[in-house]
Amino acid sequence: MKLYDYAIAPNPRRVTIFIAEKGIEIETVQIDLRAGEQKTPEFTALNPMQDVPALELDDGSCINQVNAICRYLEEVYPQPPLYGRTAVERAQVESWNHRIQNNGILAVTEAYRNSSPFFANRAVSGPNAYAQIPELSERGLKRIGDFYTDMNAHFADNQFVMGDYFSVVDITAYITVDFAKWVKMTIPEDCTHLQRWFDEVGSRPSIG
Amino acid sequence: MKLYDYAIAPNPRRVTIFIAEKGIEIETVQIDLRAGEQKTPEFTALNPMQDVPALELDDGSCINQVNAICRYLEEVYPQPPLYGRTAVERAQVESWNHRIQNNGILAVTEAYRNSSPFFANRAVSGPNAYAQIPELSERGLKRIGDFYTDMNAHFADNQFVMGDYFSVVDITAYITVDFAKWVKMTIPEDCTHLQRWFDEVGSRPSIG
Repeated sequence: MKLYDYAIAPNPRRVTIFIAEKGIEIETVQIDLRAGEQKTPEFTALNPMQDVPALELDDGSCINQVNAICRYLEEVYPQPPLYGRTAVERAQVESWNHRIQNNGILAVTEAYRNSSPFFANRAVSGPNAYAQIPELSERGLKRIGDFYTDMNAHFADNQFVMGDYFSVVDITAYITVDFAKWVKMTIPEDCTHLQRWFDEVGSRPSIG
Repeated sequence: MKLYDYAIAPNPRRVTIFIAEKGIEIETVQIDLRAGEQKTPEFTALNPMQDVPALELDDGSCINQVNAICRYLEEVYPQPPLYGRTAVERAQVESWNHRIQNNGILAVTEAYRNSSPFFANRAVSGPNAYAQIPELSERGLKRIGDFYTDMNAHFADNQFVMGDYFSVVDITAYITVDFAKWVKMTIPEDCTHLQRWFDEVGSRPSIG
């Protein structure tokens, strides 16, 4: 297996943290998105979505998209389980992961891609061109604030997103908060529970 | 188990089609979203997200969110498998499902919720208030058009999204196209491969 990564970008980082939590090692190749290396004919043949992360399997086929890669690794390397330990827990992980993807990662993405000059006319990920919508960037910032409030309330009573069980959802949520720095939305001072969780997760060897 | 449903809404319909494909029966309770039945104290206690679909388990706990419910049912009723038959196939299903969720379902949702008077100040699902952004509704319509073009090209060479294997992704994609009627975006005449697939899937007993 070979992982195509761009170490500073949030989505591939979710995969490299996941790999570190599994305690495994996978050969990694850096694809410089800023330099456009994802658009070369070679890489496009491997991953027509022209994006990282992408996991090349030994037969030359490719899995793209964060959760597709992480779920595959969860099957191949089941320990420690990061997508839940029982059927009900796995369902709750899926539900939380979707919620944080929509209310967290997507909110930051909307705020960032609709304001950064680098993404002019590329406001949505993927090959199609879409103009930026400044109002959507503003709404993204408001949504990040609401996400912080919601998660702060949750962490008042929960060590991790899934209670006392560290899961892939903590990685999704951690990267959301870390990514939000790109739009200058750090954790508000009064969100002490969220800050406690962020510091705790951030001190794990997979991240720190 | 008991499924909370609102039969005309797209997301709960993905679950009821999935259940029909599994050949199982689950007691179903209608929650009239237009009448605000999701906001009663009883339903909120069950599902704090105040949304359907929601699956109540026999111990009184609740799973919300489409894929969380469907994945749980996939574990409890493995046959026929709808999330893939091998580890690699399951990863490809996850990747496609994410792609169609983002480029299909989300595009229609953006177009609809940012224009329908019913969703004034509720442009994002969930309990927080967000004003509508007309420009985002327009972009949603453009994204639906691009989604049709992309999927039409895919179906030129593929019976279903996953080749000759019918999966949960076909349900996601079918509901995207069906939901797009709400914003008057039917399949363009020149998208004959997409139309062929839509007619074929639509004629399945789980849908027809």
